[in-house]
Amino acid sequence: MIKLIPTRIPIKVGDKFIAVLNEHTAHKLDLHAGDRVLIKDGGREPLRALLDVTDNSEIRDTQIGLYVETWNKLGAKRGERLSISVAEKPISIQYIKDKLNGKTLTKTQIDEIIKDVVEEDLSDVEISYFVAGCYINKLTEAETVNLTKSIVEHGSILKFHKKVVVDKHCIGGVAGNRTTMIAVPILTALGLTMPKTSSRAITSPSGTADTMEVLCNVTIPGPKLQKIADKVGGFIAWGGGVDLAAADDKMIRARHPLSLDPEGMLLASIMAKKHSVSSTHVIIDIPVGPEVKIKNKADGERLASKFRSLGKKLGMIVQVLLTNGEEPIGNGVGPILEAIDVMKVLKNEPDAPQDLKEKGIELSAQLLELCGKVKKGKGEAIAREVLESGRAYKQMMRIIQAQGPSKTPLIPGKYTQAVYSKKTGKVITLNNELIAHIARTAGAPTDKGAGVYINKKIGDTVKKGEILYTIYAEIEERLKYSEEYNLDAVYLIK
Amino acid sequence: MIKLIPTRIPIKVGDKFIAVLNEHTAHKLDLHAGDRVLIKDGGREPLRALLDVTDNSEIRDTQIGLYVETWNKLGAKRGERLSISVAEKPISIQYIKDKLNGKTLTKTQIDEIIKDVVEEDLSDVEISYFVAGCYINKLTEAETVNLTKSIVEHGSILKFHKKVVVDKHCIGGVAGNRTTMIAVPILTALGLTMPKTSSRAITSPSGTADTMEVLCNVTIPGPKLQKIADKVGGFIAWGGGVDLAAADDKMIRARHPLSLDPEGMLLASIMAKKHSVSSTHVIIDIPVGPEVKIKNKADGERLASKFRSLGKKLGMIVQVLLTNGEEPIGNGVGPILEAIDVMKVLKNEPDAPQDLKEKGIELSAQLLELCGKVKKGKGEAIAREVLESGRAYKQMMRIIQAQGPSKTPLIPGKYTQAVYSKKTGKVITLNNELIAHIARTAGAPTDKGAGVYINKKIGDTVKKGEILYTIYAEIEERLKYSEEYNLDAVYLIK
Repeated sequence: MIKLIPTRIPIKVGDKFIAVLNEHTAHKLDLHAGDRVLIKDGGREPLRALLDVTDNSEIRDTQIGLYVETWNKLGAKRGERLSISVAEKPISIQYIKDKLNGKTLTKTQIDEIIKDVVEEDLSDVEISYFVAGCYINKLTEAETVNLTKSIVEHGSILKFHKKVVVDKHCIGGVAGNRTTMIAVPILTALGLTMPKTSSRAITSPSGTADTMEVLCNVTIPGPKLQKIADKVGGFIAWGGGVDLAAADDKMIRARHPLSLDPEGMLLASIMAKKHSVSSTHVIIDIPVGPEVKIKNKADGERLASKFRSLGKKLGMIVQVLLTNGEEPIGNGVGPILEAIDVMKVLKNEPDAPQDLKEKGIELSAQLLELCGKVKKGKGEAIAREVLESGRAYKQMMRIIQAQGPSKTPLIPGKYTQAVYSKKTGKVITLNNELIAHIARTAGAPTDKGAGVYINKKIGDTVKKGEILYTIYAEIEERLKYSEEYNLDAVYLIK
Repeated sequence: MIKLIPTRIPIKVGDKFIAVLNEHTAHKLDLHAGDRVLIKDGGREPLRALLDVTDNSEIRDTQIGLYVETWNKLGAKRGERLSISVAEKPISIQYIKDKLNGKTLTKTQIDEIIKDVVEEDLSDVEISYFVAGCYINKLTEAETVNLTKSIVEHGSILKFHKKVVVDKHCIGGVAGNRTTMIAVPILTALGLTMPKTSSRAITSPSGTADTMEVLCNVTIPGPKLQKIADKVGGFIAWGGGVDLAAADDKMIRARHPLSLDPEGMLLASIMAKKHSVSSTHVIIDIPVGPEVKIKNKADGERLASKFRSLGKKLGMIVQVLLTNGEEPIGNGVGPILEAIDVMKVLKNEPDAPQDLKEKGIELSAQLLELCGKVKKGKGEAIAREVLESGRAYKQMMRIIQAQGPSKTPLIPGKYTQAVYSKKTGKVITLNNELIAHIARTAGAPTDKGAGVYINKKIGDTVKKGEILYTIYAEIEERLKYSEEYNLDAVYLIK
């Protein structure tokens, strides 16, 4: 048995245990890149790791390279001697191949894959083959249900001592649209439990977590979140800060390079997150419009029925709303600009964006009726009363207090550029996607005060020379970047 | 623009240029893992690299981690300042997604993918998505032709000033079977050009390159190979030592974790290697048998017609032989044991394995007739004459001399275990796969003298107590490992 001297590779590879041999030693031991190996010394528990092979010059023949996580987990010491042997590859690799071959996987097989994803016993390449199989060969409804359950079972779960736990989710694509920050205070003010985990922007100018973050802390561990929900009824936290649906986050990473959205995985991803916070009643918001994921009502209905059916199988009551995805919701796009919109609505300020207010009320009303808190047809009046009376605002301040308020004031970027209308007429279309690009180029969501403020919405009349929208940036240079877009193409005015 | 201090990560990642930022800096610069970035300083040409993101502790906020290749290519210096900006992702990512979506790719699109594979501008995950697309959605014949051409065009090519260049390839699975080492000396002795590149064992007990390596050097750069072929007519070299079909090697790496063999890629892989050495006339040997890839004649014929048709489209004349894959060819299995067999055949020793000799003659005869060197029906007699007269042996010694002879004598492993027949009867079956496992467990191909020597073949009569086969090992411990197999299950005797 060859003994190898551990050498520490000063880089973290994200929880995976990876060992590196040079080609010569690997060849001698008949080991190959991608093999699973057991690293042993006399005393310790053997550590299972993925093997990587490099060429000869950096790791010497007598050495075994260990990335930081592997070095630490093993408690390796300089100068000691380790031995290494080949271990069985995980059986889940066979199931992934089965999925590529068009077979339908059982719950046990999906469990095995998800367990190995969570335990980091599958390489990124192997996970990407699973994504490819699900993408091309699709997941049956039974597979989707099982995948959702598996993801939930292999992650943390937040439990509340309540019969009813409400939740909402928007599949995204609409700029602004911070309805969560209106609905959570309304519903929790009425005594409901609403533990809302939200995402950060990946390709959009701001996610709910980014916008909430300008008001308070959103990176909160699970046990703390449970305490907050017990105290104030709910929270709006960053999902990535909790260990819910951990397998899903790893699969999303594998989907990212090609932006692959296998429908079954998308459904499982959303529903697993709802299931992980023990939701019982859920509203799914599906915006429909030319620049969002769902282009027409028929596609929306088809997706909606999948959500409802999946919910049923998971023991959740799910209602789907097809909403207007033709233009941004609210006036602000970008973390601070959106937060200002939200606070205006909650404070009932006269220039609060009415579309954001009404959509927030509608979602709240639907949830109130769905969970039986109020009778059919009464939801809207009650939600509106809670909002307009200021109770929702007070409740939002309690949530912010509980999460840990931010000390930074809500000041938009100091560099601005207004875009003026070149003609008089009526706004026919407002390009959601282009607005998002411009806001992002101006610095959102990294620069919290960057983004776009929209003055005119679809149906508004505009006079030549009036401001259509204003770009905000924190860094002057970034304002110039937006010139790469045709700024006049955002609006169609006739 | 943030300036970053380069820090060298002492590991090679195989030609890819990879830069690493910590999460915090990546977030600030709005960069994500998998993004392409340009690394710049004032003077040098910007370097395009793949971005990786690690968590905060190892790479500091002010640092950019550079793996060895990236550090060297950039000529980075400690203490200098670099800047980084996002670059466009390669367009080939879109084509890979198209293939996943079931579209047929054009030559231009395939070229773009292969170029980016060779230039290391696609990550392993992205390449694996291409493999998955080709695996599930299959490649049309036109795509296979274009993939083959693309692989050839993006690698080195060996050219010979000859109208006829002959070649052979066996799709593998049969232990022993070193017919290349019989055919190359016969055909080059007759003045033909035969530039044979062979593979090493991946999961078998020996590849032709492993066996040839016990006789002479097989790792020879392209220009040297051209000189050898000019001088002695041919060579038997390790394909991995030349830069032929470089893209193919990288795609094979991505296929490895799930052992995926998309048929179109398999065909392209083989034919690209033949095309890269300018072959004009090629014999493909497809063994058919219960433990090899092709289980029955119908599957063999189907594959054969694809090879012929692909050859035609590439301007090569291809003939396919369906051969007996039911048992090993020759008596030795393992590098030295196989090399001894080959030399016995070439030297016409009385105990030379007749099946190896006859298959070597048959392949040579077919190639002689295929390329028009001899008339139809005359090939066998001429090939046999060249072999039995000792001309092939003399030619083999010239090839060995030209490649650089080995100084190590051909001595099988000194630890042996004979396996005896428990009954009298006739050999009905001989399990190829089990023989390969046993030889590998005994140490082949890493321990050159390890392997199995087979005494009885299918059809032979056996008496109880006679030796069926002998296991050879260089390391005593490894002989014991073979006990995990049921050594008596290799033969069926009735």
